[in-house]
Amino acid sequence: MKRLLPILNAITPVDRSLESEIRAHLDNLTKPPGSLGFLEDLATSYCLMTGTTAPRLAKKRIVTFAGDHGVAAEGVSAFPSEVTPQMVYNMLGGGAAINVLTRHVGADLQVVDIGVADPLEGASGLVRKKVRGGTDNISAGPAMSEEEAIQAIQVGVDLANGAADDGVTLLGTGEMGIANTTPSSALYAALIPCPVIEVTGRGTGIDDTRLKNKIEVIERSLTVNGHMLQNPLTTLAAVGGLEIAGICGLILAAAGRKLPVVVDGFISSAAALVAMRLSRSVADYLFFSHCSAEAGHRTFFDRMAIRPILDLDLRLGEGTGGALAMQVIEAAVKIYNEMATFDSAGVSSKADS
Amino acid sequence: MKRLLPILNAITPVDRSLESEIRAHLDNLTKPPGSLGFLEDLATSYCLMTGTTAPRLAKKRIVTFAGDHGVAAEGVSAFPSEVTPQMVYNMLGGGAAINVLTRHVGADLQVVDIGVADPLEGASGLVRKKVRGGTDNISAGPAMSEEEAIQAIQVGVDLANGAADDGVTLLGTGEMGIANTTPSSALYAALIPCPVIEVTGRGTGIDDTRLKNKIEVIERSLTVNGHMLQNPLTTLAAVGGLEIAGICGLILAAAGRKLPVVVDGFISSAAALVAMRLSRSVADYLFFSHCSAEAGHRTFFDRMAIRPILDLDLRLGEGTGGALAMQVIEAAVKIYNEMATFDSAGVSSKADS
Repeated sequence: MKRLLPILNAITPVDRSLESEIRAHLDNLTKPPGSLGFLEDLATSYCLMTGTTAPRLAKKRIVTFAGDHGVAAEGVSAFPSEVTPQMVYNMLGGGAAINVLTRHVGADLQVVDIGVADPLEGASGLVRKKVRGGTDNISAGPAMSEEEAIQAIQVGVDLANGAADDGVTLLGTGEMGIANTTPSSALYAALIPCPVIEVTGRGTGIDDTRLKNKIEVIERSLTVNGHMLQNPLTTLAAVGGLEIAGICGLILAAAGRKLPVVVDGFISSAAALVAMRLSRSVADYLFFSHCSAEAGHRTFFDRMAIRPILDLDLRLGEGTGGALAMQVIEAAVKIYNEMATFDSAGVSSKADS
Repeated sequence: MKRLLPILNAITPVDRSLESEIRAHLDNLTKPPGSLGFLEDLATSYCLMTGTTAPRLAKKRIVTFAGDHGVAAEGVSAFPSEVTPQMVYNMLGGGAAINVLTRHVGADLQVVDIGVADPLEGASGLVRKKVRGGTDNISAGPAMSEEEAIQAIQVGVDLANGAADDGVTLLGTGEMGIANTTPSSALYAALIPCPVIEVTGRGTGIDDTRLKNKIEVIERSLTVNGHMLQNPLTTLAAVGGLEIAGICGLILAAAGRKLPVVVDGFISSAAALVAMRLSRSVADYLFFSHCSAEAGHRTFFDRMAIRPILDLDLRLGEGTGGALAMQVIEAAVKIYNEMATFDSAGVSSKADS
């Protein structure tokens, strides 16, 4: 845990004293006060995150981390592990959903090998940051060592700092890794905490028998690794994943740089939960893009009192929900910046106020 | 009613025999089947609406109709009627929320005077289609004559045909009219049908006393005009509004041209309800953009078994929710058109299927 202190100490709460000025500006725009609802909250959050009453949303980027999972051997996924590298190549070739959606919203995409078993030789355009070629089977022992978890976090930290240095003003998380809903569910159960069954779903589409097995595998993982669940970092090492650790690091360092982060779906939210258990203030810098169709995501939002932006029954990951939510956040910031005021437009204000 | 038959007869159900081919294509894209959830439904709907398995979403337009309401004299709104023309000028000047959001999503905007009391002299860029300078007070008699309702419907019909002729492939509705939640609530109560209190909210922001008054005004309107509520057209004339009739016509004619329509919020949905009561098939061509914060909109969706795309607590109108939803629909169509297939990307399909 001590090794993370420089990263954690850089995260400070947002300055809420700005909020009254931000809200006053929104109320002075030519619309009934509050009538843009959640958009006004998003604009306010974006201002607070970036510490300004004159926000700028110039450059969007999604970072999609790929990693493999030893626990895939337990039959917890509908797809075989060979799909992880295949989908990495697909993303590099521009044919995956996240490619379509980042193009649609005008965001950059970085695809990062943080832990794919395949060497991905000759993969062009890949950000090569492999910590190790996949995790060990969490139902038999820890996913990785604490040292490896820190290395994977550092990969995310470096990429967040790179984004901030590149002028990115809205950063999204994404992931690809066959079987990665399993460690995510384990992390929710351990860190919310709550019963495994409340946060475990069908992932890419398993049937009832496999779901029952998946729940048993996760329960066994938490028992086998019980001695390692004493803090968020060791929990991440014990039952997490390399891409999850990378996202956790990306989130922590972005918050330290006051760079707003759009958290994608079920797996990214598990990484965000680890980050929130490591830092009291990191949540100030997070947008949660959507409520996944994966059973358990709603439990997370309810328990943490978080409102996701979209609810489209997505359960793909990659950063897809985050890409769509970026457009809504961008709309909110443009509302803040571009609408006329009552005075400037010569519009009468409310009759009864 | 007979005068509407040529418009209504042009609306035919979508050809659902295409659905299996559309769904098969979606299932062959490099993602777990169904994992893009509602986006896949939206893509399917767009294909069915346009009658093709090779959809094209090339040009988006929002048509915002402005009209005044005699019932404003009953103190049902937080804003005075003078705001209607002021907001029309604001929209023509580019400073309203709908301007920001249509720019954001890359849609055209048409602002239509279909019934503003003010002559709007010198307003540049306005589509001038005034049927009359506002409705009469519905709590004392009909809003307009049946003849005037048909004229206002025809305005919308002409604009939908114009859009189709201009190559528009996704059309959105919008409105501006002080007090227009009042006739909308009256239409819901009459046409769902349901008690007034279930579909009446605070509009632009009235207090408890004014809300109680608003409910009484609507109940009185339905009583006073009871003899005119025998069919959807006379109901529209009796307790509707000119902009609502315009939207109704826009929706009907767009459906007749197989041009998909994005229905905005509470007022636009009331117009859509009139259209749905006039035509059994028109709903096949409608997307409902969002669930408004206006009390009663949820009632409408629940009673009609409709799923709106977004839920952002918007209650502004103008077409703002429709603009945001257009981006989601466009994303869905791009997913359909641009993603790689399992074969083309060399990705393994599901292990257990």
